[in-house]
Amino acid sequence: MSSTNGMIDPDDAVILLIDHQSGLFNTVRDVPVNDLRHYVTAISKVASLLNIPVITTASVPDGPNGPLIPEVHKYAPHAVYVPRTGQINTWDNPLFVDEVKKTGRKTLIIAGTLTSVCMAFPAVSAVKEGYNVYCVVDASGNWSKMATDITIARVAQAGAVPTDTFAIVAELMRTWNRSEGSQFAEILSEHVCHEYKCLIESFGKAQAVVKDGPETNLENYR
Amino acid sequence: MSSTNGMIDPDDAVILLIDHQSGLFNTVRDVPVNDLRHYVTAISKVASLLNIPVITTASVPDGPNGPLIPEVHKYAPHAVYVPRTGQINTWDNPLFVDEVKKTGRKTLIIAGTLTSVCMAFPAVSAVKEGYNVYCVVDASGNWSKMATDITIARVAQAGAVPTDTFAIVAELMRTWNRSEGSQFAEILSEHVCHEYKCLIESFGKAQAVVKDGPETNLENYR
Amino acid sequence: MSSTNGMIDPDDAVILLIDHQSGLFNTVRDVPVNDLRHYVTAISKVASLLNIPVITTASVPDGPNGPLIPEVHKYAPHAVYVPRTGQINTWDNPLFVDEVKKTGRKTLIIAGTLTSVCMAFPAVSAVKEGYNVYCVVDASGNWSKMATDITIARVAQAGAVPTDTFAIVAELMRTWNRSEGSQFAEILSEHVCHEYKCLIESFGKAQAVVKDGPETNLENYR
Amino acid sequence: MSSTNGMIDPDDAVILLIDHQSGLFNTVRDVPVNDLRHYVTAISKVASLLNIPVITTASVPDGPNGPLIPEVHKYAPHAVYVPRTGQINTWDNPLFVDEVKKTGRKTLIIAGTLTSVCMAFPAVSAVKEGYNVYCVVDASGNWSKMATDITIARVAQAGAVPTDTFAIVAELMRTWNRSEGSQFAEILSEHVCHEYKCLIESFGKAQAVVKDGPETNLENYR
Amino acid sequence: MSSTNGMIDPDDAVILLIDHQSGLFNTVRDVPVNDLRHYVTAISKVASLLNIPVITTASVPDGPNGPLIPEVHKYAPHAVYVPRTGQINTWDNPLFVDEVKKTGRKTLIIAGTLTSVCMAFPAVSAVKEGYNVYCVVDASGNWSKMATDITIARVAQAGAVPTDTFAIVAELMRTWNRSEGSQFAEILSEHVCHEYKCLIESFGKAQAVVKDGPETNLENYR
Amino acid sequence: MSSTNGMIDPDDAVILLIDHQSGLFNTVRDVPVNDLRHYVTAISKVASLLNIPVITTASVPDGPNGPLIPEVHKYAPHAVYVPRTGQINTWDNPLFVDEVKKTGRKTLIIAGTLTSVCMAFPAVSAVKEGYNVYCVVDASGNWSKMATDITIARVAQAGAVPTDTFAIVAELMRTWNRSEGSQFAEILSEHVCHEYKCLIESFGKAQAVVKDGPETNLENYR
Amino acid sequence: MSSTNGMIDPDDAVILLIDHQSGLFNTVRDVPVNDLRHYVTAISKVASLLNIPVITTASVPDGPNGPLIPEVHKYAPHAVYVPRTGQINTWDNPLFVDEVKKTGRKTLIIAGTLTSVCMAFPAVSAVKEGYNVYCVVDASGNWSKMATDITIARVAQAGAVPTDTFAIVAELMRTWNRSEGSQFAEILSEHVCHEYKCLIESFGKAQAVVKDGPETNLENYR
Amino acid sequence: MSSTNGMIDPDDAVILLIDHQSGLFNTVRDVPVNDLRHYVTAISKVASLLNIPVITTASVPDGPNGPLIPEVHKYAPHAVYVPRTGQINTWDNPLFVDEVKKTGRKTLIIAGTLTSVCMAFPAVSAVKEGYNVYCVVDASGNWSKMATDITIARVAQAGAVPTDTFAIVAELMRTWNRSEGSQFAEILSEHVCHEYKCLIESFGKAQAVVKDGPETNLENYR
Repeated sequence: MSSTNGMIDPDDAVILLIDHQSGLFNTVRDVPVNDLRHYVTAISKVASLLNIPVITTASVPDGPNGPLIPEVHKYAPHAVYVPRTGQINTWDNPLFVDEVKKTGRKTLIIAGTLTSVCMAFPAVSAVKEGYNVYCVVDASGNWSKMATDITIARVAQAGAVPTDTFAIVAELMRTWNRSEGSQFAEILSEHVCHEYKCLIESFGKAQAVVKDGPETNLENYR
Repeated sequence: MSSTNGMIDPDDAVILLIDHQSGLFNTVRDVPVNDLRHYVTAISKVASLLNIPVITTASVPDGPNGPLIPEVHKYAPHAVYVPRTGQINTWDNPLFVDEVKKTGRKTLIIAGTLTSVCMAFPAVSAVKEGYNVYCVVDASGNWSKMATDITIARVAQAGAVPTDTFAIVAELMRTWNRSEGSQFAEILSEHVCHEYKCLIESFGKAQAVVKDGPETNLENYR
Repeated sequence: MSSTNGMIDPDDAVILLIDHQSGLFNTVRDVPVNDLRHYVTAISKVASLLNIPVITTASVPDGPNGPLIPEVHKYAPHAVYVPRTGQINTWDNPLFVDEVKKTGRKTLIIAGTLTSVCMAFPAVSAVKEGYNVYCVVDASGNWSKMATDITIARVAQAGAVPTDTFAIVAELMRTWNRSEGSQFAEILSEHVCHEYKCLIESFGKAQAVVKDGPETNLENYR
Repeated sequence: MSSTNGMIDPDDAVILLIDHQSGLFNTVRDVPVNDLRHYVTAISKVASLLNIPVITTASVPDGPNGPLIPEVHKYAPHAVYVPRTGQINTWDNPLFVDEVKKTGRKTLIIAGTLTSVCMAFPAVSAVKEGYNVYCVVDASGNWSKMATDITIARVAQAGAVPTDTFAIVAELMRTWNRSEGSQFAEILSEHVCHEYKCLIESFGKAQAVVKDGPETNLENYR
Repeated sequence: MSSTNGMIDPDDAVILLIDHQSGLFNTVRDVPVNDLRHYVTAISKVASLLNIPVITTASVPDGPNGPLIPEVHKYAPHAVYVPRTGQINTWDNPLFVDEVKKTGRKTLIIAGTLTSVCMAFPAVSAVKEGYNVYCVVDASGNWSKMATDITIARVAQAGAVPTDTFAIVAELMRTWNRSEGSQFAEILSEHVCHEYKCLIESFGKAQAVVKDGPETNLENYR
Repeated sequence: MSSTNGMIDPDDAVILLIDHQSGLFNTVRDVPVNDLRHYVTAISKVASLLNIPVITTASVPDGPNGPLIPEVHKYAPHAVYVPRTGQINTWDNPLFVDEVKKTGRKTLIIAGTLTSVCMAFPAVSAVKEGYNVYCVVDASGNWSKMATDITIARVAQAGAVPTDTFAIVAELMRTWNRSEGSQFAEILSEHVCHEYKCLIESFGKAQAVVKDGPETNLENYR
Repeated sequence: MSSTNGMIDPDDAVILLIDHQSGLFNTVRDVPVNDLRHYVTAISKVASLLNIPVITTASVPDGPNGPLIPEVHKYAPHAVYVPRTGQINTWDNPLFVDEVKKTGRKTLIIAGTLTSVCMAFPAVSAVKEGYNVYCVVDASGNWSKMATDITIARVAQAGAVPTDTFAIVAELMRTWNRSEGSQFAEILSEHVCHEYKCLIESFGKAQAVVKDGPETNLENYR
Repeated sequence: MSSTNGMIDPDDAVILLIDHQSGLFNTVRDVPVNDLRHYVTAISKVASLLNIPVITTASVPDGPNGPLIPEVHKYAPHAVYVPRTGQINTWDNPLFVDEVKKTGRKTLIIAGTLTSVCMAFPAVSAVKEGYNVYCVVDASGNWSKMATDITIARVAQAGAVPTDTFAIVAELMRTWNRSEGSQFAEILSEHVCHEYKCLIESFGKAQAVVKDGPETNLENYR
């Protein structure tokens, strides 16, 4: 068995963020749009933290699909943007595939809006070319919930691994016992699982009460 | 890898629209009936646009199942209708299978009401005969949501690819950079993803304000 | 008791269609956007059929809220459009209220996007000024389902009558035994309750089988 | 390809109805209990109609699990009941397996309460022994919806075919063009898809109006 | 306080069952259609049991709305049917109101398909004329769930009491300690709350085990 | 304004726990049955803690409705049980009303299974007799969710105050600054809001880490 | 009619933000916790923008309830914090009520975690003392969805106005035609309705394409 | 076929309970937290009953994740706790894997919070190393429902068997006809399927009425 215990090797990974555009986001009906923005942000920040190559693209951004959301390149400034010339499946764009090949890496982490199109099509294509493909379903965004249920079955059938944002961040992070630990905690609590932020705040407060004394002293009022 | 990157080759495709009948439509509980009509319309229009053969059939249309919805043959006037003589699985009807074989094509795109019967049965049969089969689950319509969840698992297990209306239109369209681009946009916005129609209207208005000036001039009223 | 048996008197009614704009529609999360368009269309067509005055307005249509959807004025060409100068509650716009008063009618039928703002605010204001107010909740469109639940309680508490699109069409129509009967049937089946369209198709087919003979004759194949 | 086009051969089928007991039914949370009773009734009636062997069993019926619902043996009077001596997986009961083997048939249609236990366990066991297994998920009944979602994945993974009540009835029926056609229609409309009953009633009425004249003559009242 | 403790006096009650027609039933989306049939059946049977007058009517039954479901007059054979001449609000039909007045009773129990129209309109009208009105919402059936939520608020605001099928049966029954007790139990368990049927079966079995000994004797097999 | 600021005065309150029986519980479909048991337990414990009189009753407990769940009298040992002689509305039972009157209190807190019957009927009756009535909807349990939505509207219309288990416990508790504070915390965390139990455990652990040092020392492993 | 047309007069308003604490937030089950934080932030920012007094308080913040979320005082730095000495209903705390009275204002806008306790109790109390009370239900957060449905009915019955975050922001803002217009737009798009942010981005891009030319020029690639 | 008929052999099984911590529990959104505690308790008790080895671990329990819930080691006192040094996938911790290997068993039953991370990662790793892996999805707890749907597909694709708490208890129990039968019944009724507890209570009461006579004698009151 490989040294990764069957998990992703970050050094072999490329992240493909496809068509996360403002117009398309307002057609998404399976993930709340603010959650979707945060999930894409989380993945972008993790890419920066771990120096994983990111390739982005947009589908006709001069039209109603709208611009890429700024978070992608803001939080993954090293991302390479590849313009498309109309192709719906970004794998049909030779410039995009070349950019993937240039990395020399064989594990693709794909998110794309719409899930059943922009995520699923290149996933199917890449699996057929021998890549290990992970589909981050909830960082993609689809036009209907039923379409997402269908797509999970489709990509799994094709041999791509369906995953979610928390899982992909954790799989890349691998251990809390690393110098970037607190940065991962911030990414997860600010962008993925907001209940975690409450946990951190409550934890800090509970300890402060021991260290610094209570904020309110009920005894005084009895 | 094939030149289609694992996607459907429209020149190898036949579309089978099975039992989209008014009576059956009022038994559908997994897709709103107006959406279902639109999804079938979208597929019919795409078939016309790309000259993909369409074969239709109906189950006992003289009885309570009711007539085929008129949209099918209206928007795919080249469709061939094959009457059935009672068979529930249209693949049991030799006339129907002959019609498929006549096309010489090996990729079947199937939608049928009810999903777990009229779509699933011929899908299973055709896979066993060596066809590449795509099941458009949300253009089918089923009597219960649970039955649809079960059917997605069943057809995927059998080797048919489950897909949705937006995805099948996009997979057949392949690129926006084609002469039929605007017709595809109209199909998607009018019949599949109505949020897209709003995007187009808002996009046009935003640009008109720059080109032609605002409709309302708030400054006049301050 | 009044001659209307407590129902709306169409001769006393004015319809207010407020801020049904393409941009705002893509923020709606309680009614599917295509249904919403159809419900507004239905009300517009009924207004034309019964010569009920319609007053429309838009909130900053030159900005991201987008243009009024074209259906409103297309299907209610007699509608009067009153530009707003920034007021969120259209009742704060004296020009709008004047237009209402000019009709001399005292029953207001209000739909507006967003429900909890553009429908609810003028409803509350108009009740306070003594109008009989009906709120068509599902022809309005709101940013969250919970906000709609809250708004139903709010407007009912204020004394406005919450109603739905089917009910308002039926309440204005009053009887099938009128010359416009078939037009109402078309409005309801095409724009409000699509299951009804299937009923009409199946009904026609069932009678055609008796009158014209069956389409398929199973006996021939046994 | 086999003469059944990949569908079940009724002459090779045995139906196993496991633990459909009154007490267990009140623990079911994924299917409304009245629907569940009807689905089991439908399968029992189809078994009688097609002379398919039925084997039933119950889990500790003298205790809180309660008695078998009477519909099973009432509508499939030829069913053989095999008492169990505590085994949860009925395949662990040699008497039960012997009864299956006696039929000489190799296709098992299984429904059982609870789905994730009484249906899933013998399904897994029988697949391992080389049977073709169909699991009727919605005629089973489970203690939670999540457990059902999990079980669909489990039995599909194991190689059993997940299916639903309407689909299994239709797959066994195969064609409307048979002497039992109207009996199948009654089973489906009375026990599986109640919307179908409305279709039949409306269909009959529509034709009666043509044949016998209208029930109400609006003209008289105008 | 009245001798009924604020509950309905069955001797003052009339039941109005309005437009429970096969075609309309297939447009219902808030109550499963089989449940709806059962709820109407339950109310009809209770009317017979307690000799409560029933008045029925249908909206254009010769058209796509379809015939009254047969259960109404089958289980309430004393019901009086009043044809309508197109009026949507049955209170606009003088013949219908006369029939109500003839009973001399002042408490109306109303169910009608669609809820927001056929139940709500006469409810509002009758309250205005001084009747005590109870609306059986789940024995009515509406075209959308949102429309039902809205209608509950509307009729409550108007002063009619919203209620459900179980509650209305129980309110009319008043006590188990009456000669018709077992008939009420059968109505509730067969037509309203099917879990109750399981309770009765399990109860009988549990007692039979004590009286007659167990069906299976596990001791023999250990 | 009263000294309670419009809140319940515990010294004027009586708690009526009606028909919380094992059989009826298995007909409940709006509240998970384990939650329901816990909510009833919470109210019973609070009654004991605050010495609020409790009156219980059961509907035909020798039949399929089953016995009262033992928690009621276990945790409110001072509760008075009043047998009923068949009356569905417990307010029709003079012995029960006498027991209420004996307390001399005028504020009734009512929970009963089924909500739309056993809770709602006595609530309506008691309001009419001048009592202040609070209905604990989620400690009652109803046969359908729609019936619960309807019942909330009905009891609010009648003048009873709808409330929930957490709210009624908090309203009776009034302040954390009392000797029973920790007992209330235990009731809320064990029986009402289980997330609260996690909060308490995490809080304790966070403080223990400060006081006693960490359980695991990651530094040792770097 | 008042000059506010029945809407809130911001100059008469006080905002009460009660118990928005990290621990309590993790018990909330009716609003996603990140949305809840944003809604409270939006209200805090609006208070600052319009100089509306804000009074905050916390329930036992030294214990498991955890600290106030920092957003409240960060975005409403003028807020006055009133410690509580155990009272659950903050209206039972004389210091808190004094702080309200000091403002001399009579319109209270209340949000509090949990909705059915911390929002509802002071709302009921304040209405009884003659205040106009608005309850911002979705900026409160409750332990169950059913409890929220119940609470909407309770506060409306008591005479408080239920409202939502978007509505309260809009009601206070009153018009877009004011100097703070863009700040309100930012509050709504960043914190309340995230779809609005996409609208703004797409709008800007659409206009930029006209003004600055397209980002991608498809013509070059044909 | 093996003597287990394809079911788990308890003598070859090890149970891995991973990261069931109080803090993490309050991030769970797919299973109610009290249900989750009970499911983990059930598995712990079964492990004790059948002497199945249990290995537990926690992720950074000194931080916001919080302590292991006490139920795990309370009800499985033989469980071995292995501290982790930051690894997210517990299979990356050599001490943990050694502990598994020490048992010499090859069938792993895994539950872990969060499902898509703490359950899924070691499941994937262990399958790759040749273990038979069962994933108890509803005894795990995930941060979103969509993530759970995705994870079921992922682990099934990897070759691990997805299962639920009731199923795993029943699969390990194998037969009711064993000395621990009543202990299993108690585990299932107290911790897994609470409806079962009601069944047992009602069953006992029904039999007591026969044996000991009725509790209430209605005849006395007629």
